[in-house]
This record gives sequence, C-alpha cells and structure tokens, in this order.
Amino acid sequence: MKAKLLILGVLHRGNFHPYEIKRRLENAMVECYTDVEVGTLYYAIRQMDKEGLISTVSHQRVARGGMRTVYKITAKGKTEFMDLLHRQFEQDGPVSQTLYGALLFLHLSDLALVQDLIRDRIARLDEQIAKLGPIRKELRPVLSTGGEHLLRHLDQQRRLDRDWLKGLLTDVKARRVRDVADPKRLAIDKDGRGIDGTAKLPR
Amino acid sequence: MKAKLLILGVLHRGNFHPYEIKRRLENAMVECYTDVEVGTLYYAIRQMDKEGLISTVSHQRVARGGMRTVYKITAKGKTEFMDLLHRQFEQDGPVSQTLYGALLFLHLSDLALVQDLIRDRIARLDEQIAKLGPIRKELRPVLSTGGEHLLRHLDQQRRLDRDWLKGLLTDVKARRVRDVADPKRLAIDKDGRGIDGTAKLPR
Repeated sequence: MKAKLLILGVLHRGNFHPYEIKRRLENAMVECYTDVEVGTLYYAIRQMDKEGLISTVSHQRVARGGMRTVYKITAKGKTEFMDLLHRQFEQDGPVSQTLYGALLFLHLSDLALVQDLIRDRIARLDEQIAKLGPIRKELRPVLSTGGEHLLRHLDQQRRLDRDWLKGLLTDVKARRVRDVADPKRLAIDKDGRGIDGTAKLPR
Repeated sequence: MKAKLLILGVLHRGNFHPYEIKRRLENAMVECYTDVEVGTLYYAIRQMDKEGLISTVSHQRVARGGMRTVYKITAKGKTEFMDLLHRQFEQDGPVSQTLYGALLFLHLSDLALVQDLIRDRIARLDEQIAKLGPIRKELRPVLSTGGEHLLRHLDQQRRLDRDWLKGLLTDVKARRVRDVADPKRLAIDKDGRGIDGTAKLPR
C-alpha cells in the first residue's frame, strides 16, 4: 500500500495542507489496517509535488508565525490515482495487504473496470485453491508441523478472500457503491471516530 | 517479516555460503508468503556479519575463479534468532503478515513461551472481535460501501486468525511439533518443490 494512493485520495475531497491530509488519514485510522506510517506523509507529499502529482494552491499563515502550503491534485495526479487504485484490485496477495486502502476510495473508481479486475482475481484464487489441495496432501508426510499449519492458514486465507471478493463483486456489479454519508469526512463517523474505531476506545 | 530471521533460521541447518542460503529459501518459496525479497539477501548477510550475528567459517574456491564465504551462526546470532522468532508470535496484525516466516522454524522455538504468546494473542483477538461488532452496527449509516466491505473483511480476518491460532495452540500445548522429515532440507519435498509448490507447477 502506497502513501501516494491515500494522499491523492484525500485530495479528491478538496485542497488541503499537509497537516490536514495527515489528520484525515489518522481519523480514518489507516495505520490500523495498512502499512502506511502517517509519520512519513510529509516526505511523500514533497516528493509528489516534485513529480507534479499535486501543486501549490496558496499559503496559509499559521498562528505561531509559520506558513502552510495548501495543495491540490493535478490532472497528472488524478491519472496516477486512478492507475494506483485500479492496480490494487489487480494485484494478488492477501486482501488485508492489498485492498484495505483502496476500499476507502472505491466510489471514485471505474466500476466497470473494477468489476473485471475482481472477477479475474476470483478466478486466479479459485485456481490457486484447487492446486493447493493435492499439494498439501502429497507433502503431508515430509512437512514440519509449522509448515503444515502455514499451508492450512494459506488455504483458509485464500478461501476467505475469494468469498469476500464475491460479496464485493455483487455490489460493484449492481453499481451499489456509495460515498460516505458526510463528504466532508474521509470515512469517519460524526464523533470523529475512525471507521475501525477501536483505537479511540478503551483497550 | 525480516530477512534476518529467515537467514538465521537456515543457518541452524549448518554452515552455508550466501548462494546456498538463498537457494534454500527459494526452495521453501518464502517469496510466495512473506514480503522478503530473495534479491536483498546478500546485503542482509553482509550486515549481519558486521553485527556479529554470523561469522566466516571458511572460503570456497568457485569453478570460475571467484571465492565464496561460508558462514555460521554465532552465539549472539542464536540469541537474536530466538528473540526475533518469539516476537513474531507476540506481534499483532494478520497472521499472513506476521507468522508465516516464523512457522518454518516453529520446532526451534521455546514451546512453553510460544504457548503463552499464542494464548495472549488469542485473547487480544477475542477482545478486538467483541469490540468491532457494535462499532460496525453503529457506523453502518455513515459508512461508504468500500468502508463497509473493509470492516466486514477485518472481522472475518480476525475470526479466521483466532480460530487458526487455536489449532496451532493445541499442537504447541501437546508438544506435537516436529521438524521436516528430511533435515537436510528447509521445508521442501523430495523433488525439490517448495512447501507451497504452486510456482513450479504449470499455471
């Protein structure tokens, strides 16, 4: 999961300074379910400015005397965003590692394309699941206990992902894909709690 | 997942030169289920030599005139390995991202400690699962379609991991943890096929 995708996604909501981008991603709790570290966002934003994916709209004076740069997404940034977004649906590997970030922006995607990508991914998973069965049986006598549990998890993981993708496909096919109820927010509830929510509840 | 853990694990089988370490990890198909890139192993091995986790045993002349360094694991390396191995069982996050590499070396772990770590991890997952239910219900009216599917996957993922960990715990508790049948190999079958196996089968 790339920070780039998340930043470009947030800038579809409006023009923001880096701190506001960071705040919105923190509220959506992206750190709970992606490997993006919010601490590295400022660096990513500077790089994206250099690459022409975002550009300066204005400068805001901050209370303590500093200046904040407000960025907007460029046409090049929008193309890059769509490309990154669709590639997440194309990519193999556990859903938890590849799709969680992209799901936040599902409503911005080309649903006809995403529908095809999900269908292909389900077909590849079907194939992998069908192949793993006989291999597990054949290898059983020579496997370590750890290896046996690994293959059992791999099998269950692929089945979960495949079945979950089928559910997602149903909504995408029917074009039942809505944005969050309050478009000022990025996937957070009215109390400012993230979509996962757990981090702000007592542990 | 760190390359370090895998390299130190392989060196529990004997003293090897970097190419042999790489070959064994390739045979175990670690690239199919961990994020370790086999291409970065040489760099990791040089670093580990500097850190004193491994040390030179001998040099082998290679046919084409070059030299190969054979490494062994040091006492410091063994301590580091056990620490890394056990930390994988402690760490939260999807099993597919945190435990696959460690499972290859389950038979080398301190099973009494691993038993406690797995039990704690199951307890934390139980708690997270219990909390997510009401949050999902509460957020439903304000969530985007993508966010809704994300939370559904997160819930299913945690349940799968929890139930799978319970199966692993049963074997660890009963001390039913064996090494691979052929200890010259690292989790590969007699035809040299990796434990996943899919990569060498026709697609």
